[in-house]
Amino acid sequence: MPGRQLRIDEYRIEQEPYYLPTGDELAIADAAYHDGSPLLLKGPTGCGKTRFMQYLAWRLQRPLVTVSCHDDLSTSDLVGRYLIRAGEAVWTDGPLTMAVRAGAICYLDEIVEARKDTTVVIHPLADDRRQLPIEKRGELLTAPAEFMLAVSYNPGYQSVLKDLKASTRQRFIALSFDYPDPEREMEIVCREGRLGMEIAKPLVKLAAMTRGLKDSGLAEGASTRLLIQTGKLIGRGIPIKTACRAAISEALTDDRELLAAMDEMISSLF
Amino acid sequence: MPGRQLRIDEYRIEQEPYYLPTGDELAIADAAYHDGSPLLLKGPTGCGKTRFMQYLAWRLQRPLVTVSCHDDLSTSDLVGRYLIRAGEAVWTDGPLTMAVRAGAICYLDEIVEARKDTTVVIHPLADDRRQLPIEKRGELLTAPAEFMLAVSYNPGYQSVLKDLKASTRQRFIALSFDYPDPEREMEIVCREGRLGMEIAKPLVKLAAMTRGLKDSGLAEGASTRLLIQTGKLIGRGIPIKTACRAAISEALTDDRELLAAMDEMISSLF
Amino acid sequence: MPGRQLRIDEYRIEQEPYYLPTGDELAIADAAYHDGSPLLLKGPTGCGKTRFMQYLAWRLQRPLVTVSCHDDLSTSDLVGRYLIRAGEAVWTDGPLTMAVRAGAICYLDEIVEARKDTTVVIHPLADDRRQLPIEKRGELLTAPAEFMLAVSYNPGYQSVLKDLKASTRQRFIALSFDYPDPEREMEIVCREGRLGMEIAKPLVKLAAMTRGLKDSGLAEGASTRLLIQTGKLIGRGIPIKTACRAAISEALTDDRELLAAMDEMISSLF
Amino acid sequence: MPGRQLRIDEYRIEQEPYYLPTGDELAIADAAYHDGSPLLLKGPTGCGKTRFMQYLAWRLQRPLVTVSCHDDLSTSDLVGRYLIRAGEAVWTDGPLTMAVRAGAICYLDEIVEARKDTTVVIHPLADDRRQLPIEKRGELLTAPAEFMLAVSYNPGYQSVLKDLKASTRQRFIALSFDYPDPEREMEIVCREGRLGMEIAKPLVKLAAMTRGLKDSGLAEGASTRLLIQTGKLIGRGIPIKTACRAAISEALTDDRELLAAMDEMISSLF
Amino acid sequence: MPGRQLRIDEYRIEQEPYYLPTGDELAIADAAYHDGSPLLLKGPTGCGKTRFMQYLAWRLQRPLVTVSCHDDLSTSDLVGRYLIRAGEAVWTDGPLTMAVRAGAICYLDEIVEARKDTTVVIHPLADDRRQLPIEKRGELLTAPAEFMLAVSYNPGYQSVLKDLKASTRQRFIALSFDYPDPEREMEIVCREGRLGMEIAKPLVKLAAMTRGLKDSGLAEGASTRLLIQTGKLIGRGIPIKTACRAAISEALTDDRELLAAMDEMISSLF
Amino acid sequence: MPGRQLRIDEYRIEQEPYYLPTGDELAIADAAYHDGSPLLLKGPTGCGKTRFMQYLAWRLQRPLVTVSCHDDLSTSDLVGRYLIRAGEAVWTDGPLTMAVRAGAICYLDEIVEARKDTTVVIHPLADDRRQLPIEKRGELLTAPAEFMLAVSYNPGYQSVLKDLKASTRQRFIALSFDYPDPEREMEIVCREGRLGMEIAKPLVKLAAMTRGLKDSGLAEGASTRLLIQTGKLIGRGIPIKTACRAAISEALTDDRELLAAMDEMISSLF
Repeated sequence: MPGRQLRIDEYRIEQEPYYLPTGDELAIADAAYHDGSPLLLKGPTGCGKTRFMQYLAWRLQRPLVTVSCHDDLSTSDLVGRYLIRAGEAVWTDGPLTMAVRAGAICYLDEIVEARKDTTVVIHPLADDRRQLPIEKRGELLTAPAEFMLAVSYNPGYQSVLKDLKASTRQRFIALSFDYPDPEREMEIVCREGRLGMEIAKPLVKLAAMTRGLKDSGLAEGASTRLLIQTGKLIGRGIPIKTACRAAISEALTDDRELLAAMDEMISSLF
Repeated sequence: MPGRQLRIDEYRIEQEPYYLPTGDELAIADAAYHDGSPLLLKGPTGCGKTRFMQYLAWRLQRPLVTVSCHDDLSTSDLVGRYLIRAGEAVWTDGPLTMAVRAGAICYLDEIVEARKDTTVVIHPLADDRRQLPIEKRGELLTAPAEFMLAVSYNPGYQSVLKDLKASTRQRFIALSFDYPDPEREMEIVCREGRLGMEIAKPLVKLAAMTRGLKDSGLAEGASTRLLIQTGKLIGRGIPIKTACRAAISEALTDDRELLAAMDEMISSLF
Repeated sequence: MPGRQLRIDEYRIEQEPYYLPTGDELAIADAAYHDGSPLLLKGPTGCGKTRFMQYLAWRLQRPLVTVSCHDDLSTSDLVGRYLIRAGEAVWTDGPLTMAVRAGAICYLDEIVEARKDTTVVIHPLADDRRQLPIEKRGELLTAPAEFMLAVSYNPGYQSVLKDLKASTRQRFIALSFDYPDPEREMEIVCREGRLGMEIAKPLVKLAAMTRGLKDSGLAEGASTRLLIQTGKLIGRGIPIKTACRAAISEALTDDRELLAAMDEMISSLF
Repeated sequence: MPGRQLRIDEYRIEQEPYYLPTGDELAIADAAYHDGSPLLLKGPTGCGKTRFMQYLAWRLQRPLVTVSCHDDLSTSDLVGRYLIRAGEAVWTDGPLTMAVRAGAICYLDEIVEARKDTTVVIHPLADDRRQLPIEKRGELLTAPAEFMLAVSYNPGYQSVLKDLKASTRQRFIALSFDYPDPEREMEIVCREGRLGMEIAKPLVKLAAMTRGLKDSGLAEGASTRLLIQTGKLIGRGIPIKTACRAAISEALTDDRELLAAMDEMISSLF
Repeated sequence: MPGRQLRIDEYRIEQEPYYLPTGDELAIADAAYHDGSPLLLKGPTGCGKTRFMQYLAWRLQRPLVTVSCHDDLSTSDLVGRYLIRAGEAVWTDGPLTMAVRAGAICYLDEIVEARKDTTVVIHPLADDRRQLPIEKRGELLTAPAEFMLAVSYNPGYQSVLKDLKASTRQRFIALSFDYPDPEREMEIVCREGRLGMEIAKPLVKLAAMTRGLKDSGLAEGASTRLLIQTGKLIGRGIPIKTACRAAISEALTDDRELLAAMDEMISSLF
Repeated sequence: MPGRQLRIDEYRIEQEPYYLPTGDELAIADAAYHDGSPLLLKGPTGCGKTRFMQYLAWRLQRPLVTVSCHDDLSTSDLVGRYLIRAGEAVWTDGPLTMAVRAGAICYLDEIVEARKDTTVVIHPLADDRRQLPIEKRGELLTAPAEFMLAVSYNPGYQSVLKDLKASTRQRFIALSFDYPDPEREMEIVCREGRLGMEIAKPLVKLAAMTRGLKDSGLAEGASTRLLIQTGKLIGRGIPIKTACRAAISEALTDDRELLAAMDEMISSLF
């Protein structure tokens, strides 16, 4: 069906995304891909998991179908459902089924946010059966060699209620991500934030300082993404301190004391 | 499709809304708009966040699609759904999808009230992908440069249950709003409440006094909006004290002691 | 569409309802109506809030659309939904939309009982935008000047779970209602209960006595409505004490001790 | 429409039901009916509330539409819904609407078991408006004089979670029912259970003894209905003690100690 | 309608089921059937309640419609629903309605597992009205004399949350079931498990021993059904101890200590 | 219907799956199959339960229909539902019904995760009736001799909330699975992980060490499946320690201390 082909082509990544590797994550992901093993990405907000998946998809020349998971994502949202067309119930593939059929990479972002049924529906896809049972159609889909399953989550959020079950975890090759080291982070901020080194350097230092505020009650420190957004504001003529407050402090917290602490950090750096 | 164009035009703001800037919020919002970054507005009830969005939309000459968030707002309410037309399931865009297609500003008011799925559906729109996956159609919509996403919330309501996740917050340029300073508030009350200075001044004083009652158990003090409504009642011939009770005290609380305290404040001023 | 016009006409109040004003509530309501401000009615069960709205609607010559709120009232119940007609999804206005289009008064009785989404859907109608976004149609309805929004609630029921949010309250002109003073209550009971003064007087006294039982565990004292129903039973030949027990005591409580206390009150009066 | 007429006729009670009055309940119910006031029946399980309603309906020559309330009874179940017929959504009256249109008696059994929305939908029917708003049709139905609303509940079950709200209770004329006195109960058991006095007398005594076990943990004592069922078993040749155990003890409890206590009671009587 | 007749015939029990009576349960059930009274079967898992119903149905020559109750069994599942056929909503009887129309026996297994609405829908069927109101059709079905209602439950599971309401219990003739005495149990195990007395005897002893483990934390002891299954495994050549472990110990618990205790019991007997 | 036949053929296992028996599990399963008794598989994640079912299905030459259970799996998902086709509601078998009709093996994986209704719907299939009542069709399906029901669960997850009810458990022949002994595990890892003995041996040792970490807070130790995945990574050229970290440590936990402990284990072995 040409229409469907067109659809999946929307998910192809044409241009090489900018990605700075930090270890052997690409070699492991390649091996997992060729073994037909699924991938589990762990790490904090905005540290580059999504960008890694984009780069991997570009490198493997596979379309990338990303699904942001949440409490209300049902199995039907993933697998598909019947829709009425001209008085007929016509089956419509969900993003997961579409990815399996097309031999694409299906990336379930923040998988622990999903309902249990969403987590369980990937079980037979994530072991050596590599099958997707579409119960509503009585169809049993076997994934082609090109299909890859990847999921991500943020261990910092982990709670008793929202944890991956052992029977789910034990199906994945796991990659642990973290913020890049200062050298790499500066390189990224300069490039993506369109900044010179003289501003990127103290910005990266500020990020590290906010990451140290975790014990003072800050949920998470500034991600690399926030530094990039700060850089862009500065590039538009917003004064540095104002940009830091809007893109970093106020984006991170509403707590007056934490905001004051960050104001002091900003003043000490710029 | 001309019908759809007509629809979005209903959301255009033709006349310049009255807005008194209090800082660099317009410069930051302009920069965010041109960088394609999303906006987070923080601040108490009735302090002017909605009016700011109206002014910004008028200034940028973009339609403004506002969605008041609540517990039962589903992803389908935002993104769209299939409806049966002449025996066919016809896709109908939700307000968010409509805004993305039209390059409008989509403003999600009180975002923390929304269900988690509503919050997560905006993730790929709120980072540098600027994409809206419409899972039910298998469509991946890329936002045009004119599209802007903005959300608001009231940090005063913040609770453990209803807080923005770090992975959501860290996508936004954040602007903090507060009640205007007395000079500005008087100017606004005179203009919008059609009052003279001699009444606007004690009204603004009364508002400040009620805002001081927070420690005595009042959830929030009188907003600028309440002062305007009081002014209008007075303009219709309602005695000042009666107007203050109906539009301020009784609108703020049912607590007998707090009502008595406000009665005393009113008597001391008028 | 003539059919729709007919419908709204069912909601017109043709005859002047009997209403005894107790203060400046009519003047304030008139002013709010002409300013386009919404109305919040506060007060105990059966004290005349509904009758006041009927009188106001008659006085302003506007149809009155009343919706009794409850836990399961959805936004669609208020705003409208698509129904299948001849294979087409045809939009059907809900009572709120019908009221907005017709420039009627929409009265949401016991608003705190409603789900949060019902409360939030009225926000843009209740501030100076006076707009009703019909998200399922992508339609933005602007209320005509004749439209008025009114809501009621009983502060005596107020609990942490069921309270109006500050951001909702601060949109309304608030009117506080209470039981009428003895003189007025006697006048009402005579007229509506078709009784003479010699029975109305001790009945009103009995009501006051039951209202004093609140500290002994009675949720609410006898309302004026109960006195009227007692009067009607007496008019049908039911003995006074039997009528008081059936229409007042047993209607108020199942508690044996409270029933005994009220039996004593009744015996002391008749 | 003749079909609908036929339907409501199924609800007519052709033969005079057997009912032994215990006080002035019939006079009060008659008065309430002629005043258009709704009726609230209170009392324990199986004490004759349903039979009273059947007798009242026969006496007033009105059809009796009974609805057993429960947690999942929705407003639509009561008021009606649209059903697809030949591709059209055709409105189908629920039992309450059917009763209002036909001027029947609508009896909501165990009203406190219903969801809040079911309780609230009867509010405008239960005060002097006597109206049923059918929100889904935008129709406002005014009840004819012949219509009567009646509800029942068992105060013994009363809990904080399942209690009638004051704003609901204060609309009803309330009748309190209890088990009949021994003389009347014997008369009923003889007649309905097809027994002679020599067995009916100790059976009624046994019932009284079980009603005294409430303090020992028995939820409710034996109702008159259970005595009648025991009588019928005896009439079929089941030995008296066996019949008492099957129709009374085992029907009342699973608790071994309570069962033993009742065995002793039975042995002492037969 | 011949199709429907065919359906109910599937529920007829053609061959006499094997059933060993343990008391006067058949006489009581016969009497209840002829009086039109409903039946309540109480007793532990696998003690023969279902078999008793099969035998009773065969004896009375009535079809037996069994419904296993559970949390999600809705009233519609029992009573029926509208289904779309050729663009029409066609009513389809549920199993309860089918049984009422056909004068069959309807057996609701583990009734306490059902939602409250399922329990309440049988109230008018379970008293002398013997009526089934089909609210969605506005139909009031009167059961023919041949119809019988029976429900079962396991008092051992009884909890505050899942108990029959007094108003439900007091409608039934109750029969208490327990495991058969050793002689009868041996006879059953020999016959159904195709075993000789030399193995059946210690098996019945083992069952009794496991039933004594209730105080050590075992939810329920081995039922007669488990003994039969053990016998069948033995007949297939599985060693006795292995069969006892697979069909008794492991089927009863996962607790290591309880499993060890049962291993010792098995070793002491075989 | 040829289409349906085709469907079930997708579930046939053509090639002999690799399975190393560890005891008499095959003899018991064979006996249960020929007796028409259902099977309960107990054991930890990844110990071979699914593989055993595949092997059994291949051996018995029956199709294997596997359903991964979860919180939201409804009875309709298992049994089937009506779908609209050309304006008609056409019945579509669910996987359980399909398996019953085809005389296949239906394997409900992690049955305790399912909702209660899913558990109860298999009751009549799991005792000597071997019937599946399809309530929505009023159809009573009797399973052919070739049909087998099997369920699995992990006793390590057992909690009060998610336990099999005694009335469910007591219908099954139960098989307890555990990790294979070291010799067998090495054989499996060599074969499936494509490794030599010199690496397989310390890997199996590592697995045993992680299984000893349960008391230190690790939910489950490394399964045989994880060892196979580690082997495959090594075969792709990933360094042994890196492969162990990605496929074992990071897949098992996010806890820093446990990760460090496993790093030490890995370093001590390779």
